Amino acid sequence: MARWEPNAPERLTRAALALFVEHGYDATTVAQIADRAGLTKSTFFRHFTDKREVLFGGQDLLTELFSEAIRTAPAAATPADCLAAALESAAVAFTPERHEFAPQRQAVIAANSELQERELLKGARLASAMADALRARGAGDVAARVAAQLGVLALSLAYSRWAAPENQQPFAEIAHVVLRDLQAQVTTLGEVASARP
Amino acid sequence: MARWEPNAPERLTRAALALFVEHGYDATTVAQIADRAGLTKSTFFRHFTDKREVLFGGQDLLTELFSEAIRTAPAAATPADCLAAALESAAVAFTPERHEFAPQRQAVIAANSELQERELLKGARLASAMADALRARGAGDVAARVAAQLGVLALSLAYSRWAAPENQQPFAEIAHVVLRDLQAQVTTLGEVASARP
Repeated sequence: MARWEPNAPERLTRAALALFVEHGYDATTVAQIADRAGLTKSTFFRHFTDKREVLFGGQDLLTELFSEAIRTAPAAATPADCLAAALESAAVAFTPERHEFAPQRQAVIAANSELQERELLKGARLASAMADALRARGAGDVAARVAAQLGVLALSLAYSRWAAPENQQPFAEIAHVVLRDLQAQVTTLGEVASARP
Repeated sequence: MARWEPNAPERLTRAALALFVEHGYDATTVAQIADRAGLTKSTFFRHFTDKREVLFGGQDLLTELFSEAIRTAPAAATPADCLAAALESAAVAFTPERHEFAPQRQAVIAANSELQERELLKGARLASAMADALRARGAGDVAARVAAQLGVLALSLAYSRWAAPENQQPFAEIAHVVLRDLQAQVTTLGEVASARP
């Protein structure tokens, strides 16, 4: 068995998502997930706090990656540069292996209002962490909050496109296009408003 | 008693906030709130679903006001115009009477992580409702989502300033200034980014 251990998180994730789709998220137990994966419950708990973390564990990683990317961006980097750096850093979390799980993950969350709330909350926390990181660099409060909200929105849009079953484009490329698109929208929103009396 | 009934929501809100501050949100019961207000539990439940709604009931009203303002804005209104109309419509919810409760409400939420999550979630739901209303007017998906996030951010900033104990400025004026400030930040963010290679 030992040589399989390095794949335990993937096997547990695959088993969990299959069971969530088959029986619903609420009706699935950790014991069933471990059983389906051919592993024990204690192996499950070495990798995940609970069954919810199978779906959302990656978002904690994203929060760390984003904060770190903003923290370590060059001193001259603007909030917009920091956003781009943050999204770029997220690419390591969106590997081809994770792409396999993405459509099922989205379907499971879409089918459960508690999980949808959890996803919204994770987005709000990510925005809050990004705003903290931007303020720590000296950005003004409003500028930091605006940039953070746009960063979370960019992530959400880029993730949806990346997660589409037919997508073969790497996350970094998608994120780059999304960020451009978002910035164009944002410029329009600012211009139209400032042109008004 | 009958002539007091019209004030029941205010009396219950005042009693609830005082108890939340004194004993903590979790330790306070609906029976205690009704008792402190000199009313019955059934009167409480005629006005609020549960004690949480004392804190968050206003946010459902805001969602309705924002959606309605966007829905009924002139056909030529841009997303930026819709944001301004939405924030303006919210002024009816931020009356001098509600200002009295605002600092206590904020202190209660700040002291309880579950309530903080609820507030984030309400913000995310409001963004989602605004984006729906903007899409229903024909706005593109990305434009609608950007405008909605900025709208929620504007509301949050304007509410914080309005809720400050020393504030005497009406909500509509504060919201107007906040929206300008936000749009200036947003323009900077778009410009800096689009000037890059």
